[in-house]
Amino acid sequence: MDWGTELWDQYEIIDKHTQWGLDLVEKYVKFVKERTEIEQNYAKQLRGLVKKYSPKRGTKEDQECKFSQSQSFVDILNEMNDYAGQREVVAENMMMNICIELTKYSQDIKQERKMFLLEGRKAQHYLECSFKQLDSSKRKFEREWREAEKAALNAERLDQDINATKADVEKAKQQAHLRTHIAEECKNEYAAQLQKYNKDQNSFYFTDMPQVYNKLQDMDERRVKKLREGYHTFAETERRVMPIIGKCLDGITKAADNANEKKDALTLIELHKSGFQRPEDVEFEDYSQAINRATSES
Amino acid sequence: MDWGTELWDQYEIIDKHTQWGLDLVEKYVKFVKERTEIEQNYAKQLRGLVKKYSPKRGTKEDQECKFSQSQSFVDILNEMNDYAGQREVVAENMMMNICIELTKYSQDIKQERKMFLLEGRKAQHYLECSFKQLDSSKRKFEREWREAEKAALNAERLDQDINATKADVEKAKQQAHLRTHIAEECKNEYAAQLQKYNKDQNSFYFTDMPQVYNKLQDMDERRVKKLREGYHTFAETERRVMPIIGKCLDGITKAADNANEKKDALTLIELHKSGFQRPEDVEFEDYSQAINRATSES
Repeated sequence: MDWGTELWDQYEIIDKHTQWGLDLVEKYVKFVKERTEIEQNYAKQLRGLVKKYSPKRGTKEDQECKFSQSQSFVDILNEMNDYAGQREVVAENMMMNICIELTKYSQDIKQERKMFLLEGRKAQHYLECSFKQLDSSKRKFEREWREAEKAALNAERLDQDINATKADVEKAKQQAHLRTHIAEECKNEYAAQLQKYNKDQNSFYFTDMPQVYNKLQDMDERRVKKLREGYHTFAETERRVMPIIGKCLDGITKAADNANEKKDALTLIELHKSGFQRPEDVEFEDYSQAINRATSES
Repeated sequence: MDWGTELWDQYEIIDKHTQWGLDLVEKYVKFVKERTEIEQNYAKQLRGLVKKYSPKRGTKEDQECKFSQSQSFVDILNEMNDYAGQREVVAENMMMNICIELTKYSQDIKQERKMFLLEGRKAQHYLECSFKQLDSSKRKFEREWREAEKAALNAERLDQDINATKADVEKAKQQAHLRTHIAEECKNEYAAQLQKYNKDQNSFYFTDMPQVYNKLQDMDERRVKKLREGYHTFAETERRVMPIIGKCLDGITKAADNANEKKDALTLIELHKSGFQRPEDVEFEDYSQAINRATSES
């Protein structure tokens, strides 16, 4: 079952369907392009968020990274930045391997299609010309036979006319003979044209157009194959970054594990321990010593 | 090594550090909240894209799904819609399990911290009062001993004064004796206050404040643990949707596989085959029959 055999009388349909196929590819490319824009925008927003929450170098916040809980947050931000990078990779690879690839392929298919349709139109035109020639030779044959018929009737009429001269009769007979001869030639010409036309028609319907249609079918099937690859790449591009995204998540988990409450409590001690001893007991100040001495002296 | 022992003189530092810890939790919650907004926005954009490219029911586009290449695209769109749904799940779970959870926990810690710091300030206030009492009893003792000294000197002076009456000397001696007695009592009172103050001071520096500081340390360590859980959940939430996202990708791959060029070529035939036979040879129309008949009749 192929288009050349089954759709031999559906030039318009094949024309439209192959155009629709190209439009579908174009639509898919546009869709993927818009997806990449969403990915880029998503990545940009994630990067913006990371930047917003990352400590500025040399600031108080930067100092706070001495505490593991703070350093963990910074590490998480860094992992999220890598995650955003992977979304950019998805966007770039989709653009490269689907949009650009399919658009390029589509251009070639468009050219091919144009060529095949032109080939079809040329064959159609050739058959039309052949038919015109057939028609013209048929009409000529018809016309000439009427003339020959008329000439024959005329010769017959003169032959039976008692008033006609022998010369007149002879002349009319010769005329009739000549006309019949011409008409015979036209008949042969018509027969030849008919044979040619039937050969052309046969060639058109059984060879030329089926070939064109089958070439269009083959082309269209190649286009679908390529589109299928484009569909595949859509999932593949995403699938390829999943292990790296998994590593980002592992990085976040590891960063989380590094947040250590005991360590941070010690860090605070290290940073702020004065080293002073706690105050000792206040000593007794004996104001009575002087007077006791005075009284004991007296 | 704990705050109660090592940071006994760093009330301000502990006050500030525990506040900073709460601020860090708040900052992290804010960060996650902004992340969820980005995810929601991303999901919304993906859903919008799906809607834009999905065929409207009952339209020509809907009809086109008879072709596998078109149906595959629709299936891919549906998978992408599920993918967007997973991003929403990420956003919702982050909001629920990090933002709401940590904010609630943070409120409790804030209350606890307030209570402990108040406890510390109360102990400080109590020690200050105790010191004021000590100081006051010390000053009274000093003052009374000066009076007693003066009275003793006065009695001594009168005792050696030949112009003084015995009654005057006796009165002065009695006065000196009384003053000394009062001063002795003040000394005892001062000694008692000193003992009490030293007990209070010891209790403040070795028991009360270390307890407060250690409770704050314990509280702060619990906060860090909870924050670490919050960090963990950030990766876990994402990790949990990865298998489902993987299934979406498998769905896309499967949809891609369904795009079949041979099938679609046949579908076009089924939809548009006219069933007509290709034209047969044009027959010869013999206009010469009539005249041949006429001539043969003559």
